[in-house]
Amino acid sequence: MEYPSKLIENAVDEISKLPGIGKKTALRLALHLLKQEKGDVRALSNALVDLRENTQYCTSCFNISDSDTCAICTSHKRDNSVICVVEDTRDVMAIENTSQFFGLYHVLGGVIMPIEGIGPSDLTIEALVKRVADTNGEVKEIILALPATMEGDTTAFYITKKLKELGVKVTSIARGVPVGGELEYTDEITLGRSIMNRQ
Amino acid sequence: MEYPSKLIENAVDEISKLPGIGKKTALRLALHLLKQEKGDVRALSNALVDLRENTQYCTSCFNISDSDTCAICTSHKRDNSVICVVEDTRDVMAIENTSQFFGLYHVLGGVIMPIEGIGPSDLTIEALVKRVADTNGEVKEIILALPATMEGDTTAFYITKKLKELGVKVTSIARGVPVGGELEYTDEITLGRSIMNRQ
Repeated sequence: MEYPSKLIENAVDEISKLPGIGKKTALRLALHLLKQEKGDVRALSNALVDLRENTQYCTSCFNISDSDTCAICTSHKRDNSVICVVEDTRDVMAIENTSQFFGLYHVLGGVIMPIEGIGPSDLTIEALVKRVADTNGEVKEIILALPATMEGDTTAFYITKKLKELGVKVTSIARGVPVGGELEYTDEITLGRSIMNRQ
Repeated sequence: MEYPSKLIENAVDEISKLPGIGKKTALRLALHLLKQEKGDVRALSNALVDLRENTQYCTSCFNISDSDTCAICTSHKRDNSVICVVEDTRDVMAIENTSQFFGLYHVLGGVIMPIEGIGPSDLTIEALVKRVADTNGEVKEIILALPATMEGDTTAFYITKKLKELGVKVTSIARGVPVGGELEYTDEITLGRSIMNRQ
């Protein structure tokens, strides 16, 4: 496609590098920005650079944080004996939204994906093992809340093996038919496993 | 939703101001940017500010341009006697892609929408009338290529009335069943008009 100016071509190129945004959407967004106040575009632009350059990660759980140690890790109301292991920040937010978990978290930063070149050393698994070992038995349970995919299962298996040596209990969140889910629309694997693992 | 840091909350707020992007998509994009190189995020950010602050508009046709007069208006290969009137830059790009039109353009910058507070004076209609009048009869035809909506029709009617006094021929792009379109799936209004306006 030929663009009317280099500036818009450059903007479309950059915007369309974002995941799930193609050239047409990028052009629509660029034309939208052209109609906004200069200050508003600067605010967006600054927010992106600020996010990338000044975001800190909690040194204990590796979640995104405004300070060295995140609000959850420093809270006195949380149960220090349970750690929930998740893939990324969105999972922490999703679990926090349920108001059903009062322990701490550990953010892996991904799952093991050999095809994408992501191995255990790219994740915070070593730090998790050290974190559990350093507390001298204060951590009683590790809950694995990883995606129900092959990569998630591989990661769960790896972590379980690593933690076994420390003698800590490792559990996994329940898999089954979602609440409100119709049996006839549930896929066979989920349904099959939910029969096998009946409560 | 509670965000793990002020920086990510601010970024999500700014990104979700874009049309068609909600909070969830904004969070996904923000987390994606966190994983990119700092230079790449700066490039995106600079492209947006650059676009907004340095984009020029052609003083003749009001299309986005890198210079005072755009490449189409300065080209010797274009037919100066025909001007195609469109809503915005995307329409110019769409028509240029057809390789069927060799005249000049005039970009209105929108259509008349009383509900949104957009009147004729917010568009480049006055400039179009002046442009046609100034050429002393060199412009023979004005083709209206406006959206087939009530707002597009209103704008077309207004422009036609304004140009009548100058004695220039005003035409409109053909409306009808699209090429490859099945009759049974065409809406009644399009089908009805395409029978009335049979060629």
